[in-house]
Amino acid sequence: MSKSDSILGRLADTLETRLPSQAGHLPAESYVSKLYQRGPDAFLKKVGEEATELVMAAKDNNAERIIAETADLWFHSMVALAYYGLRPEQVLEELARREGVSGLAEKAARPQP
Amino acid sequence: MSKSDSILGRLADTLETRLPSQAGHLPAESYVSKLYQRGPDAFLKKVGEEATELVMAAKDNNAERIIAETADLWFHSMVALAYYGLRPEQVLEELARREGVSGLAEKAARPQP
Amino acid sequence: MSKSDSILGRLADTLETRLPSQAGHLPAESYVSKLYQRGPDAFLKKVGEEATELVMAAKDNNAERIIAETADLWFHSMVALAYYGLRPEQVLEELARREGVSGLAEKAARPQP
Amino acid sequence: MSKSDSILGRLADTLETRLPSQAGHLPAESYVSKLYQRGPDAFLKKVGEEATELVMAAKDNNAERIIAETADLWFHSMVALAYYGLRPEQVLEELARREGVSGLAEKAARPQP
Repeated sequence: MSKSDSILGRLADTLETRLPSQAGHLPAESYVSKLYQRGPDAFLKKVGEEATELVMAAKDNNAERIIAETADLWFHSMVALAYYGLRPEQVLEELARREGVSGLAEKAARPQP
Repeated sequence: MSKSDSILGRLADTLETRLPSQAGHLPAESYVSKLYQRGPDAFLKKVGEEATELVMAAKDNNAERIIAETADLWFHSMVALAYYGLRPEQVLEELARREGVSGLAEKAARPQP
Repeated sequence: MSKSDSILGRLADTLETRLPSQAGHLPAESYVSKLYQRGPDAFLKKVGEEATELVMAAKDNNAERIIAETADLWFHSMVALAYYGLRPEQVLEELARREGVSGLAEKAARPQP
Repeated sequence: MSKSDSILGRLADTLETRLPSQAGHLPAESYVSKLYQRGPDAFLKKVGEEATELVMAAKDNNAERIIAETADLWFHSMVALAYYGLRPEQVLEELARREGVSGLAEKAARPQP
């Protein structure tokens, strides 16, 4: 397995250990545990907030902040995925499926030789 | 290279071929080419819109839509990354770096045996 | 009644005539009627979208667009209010109530002569 | 002048006294002063955040929270307006102008007797 792939998968594994339903989770020590204990609105609000911060970093054309805010946005959407029992691999499969469809559509739209 | 990893990397490769700066790009045939031609506000607006749609899908506890809206959100943030000359691998590295830091911090906070 | 006040109140009156529950409403002719027929997600998505557009107009320091996007944002939040049977006057009262509280709090915090 | 009208106008007057450019402003005592001192991203981020919270309150069909979050959203957009030297009356005029245009358009579209 590649290093990049293991990042999203491993992060999802970690997030799942923070769920309130998880035996032996450590509520007081983890930012994510606290988000989960406050309920979905707490992390969904962060999705909206981080999206706005990515937009502002992009308007400032600030590469470092664009990377950091995209990481924040993906992180909090993965917090949401774990809460609803979903995995990042399902999102990647959906992206792959679309690219396949789009690739075929664009191929079909090209003028024939 | 893993299948999942190649998805984000391959999607980024595809997005880069849609940039207006790219020789031989096919403006009329691609949704992404049109977004790039309309300028950053066009795809940044989509980041805000898709974040809101993810929040609504989550409030509805609709697994299929949560996956689809997360895919839309990640897709449009990757459209932004490509526009600013950035790669999803940089976001994954940032996530890995944080997890490492957080992992160490939590390890340190645990009671010693 | 002042001109400004009548604007929000009159706009709310108009929006209420577009509700699907309203007898004799004209679905095909009105943007708002169409939003209501598509359900809450249609106009709530616009709230997120217009907030992002206001943020971008502000980052561009473009006064004309800031006004236009704020109008869009307030308009779509009033579409939501009407859908849920609420009035802009209730929002204004809430703002007045807070200003009163805040005014008192700040007065109390000032050094006494 | 009506009570409702004076709310937005009076709130704008108050916000303007919190601007860093204002002589004799009280930085330490006011939430808004602190937002202004942190710069536009601080209050623009709140616009995105409060829009997301309004969407969540609406999805929950919670009237009290819809009013409170709309007040938060309008408040922070008025914080932005004041920062850029703009007034809520300009937003109300834009809403009135559109309603006039829309009213005429819909009148014209009605079948003639």
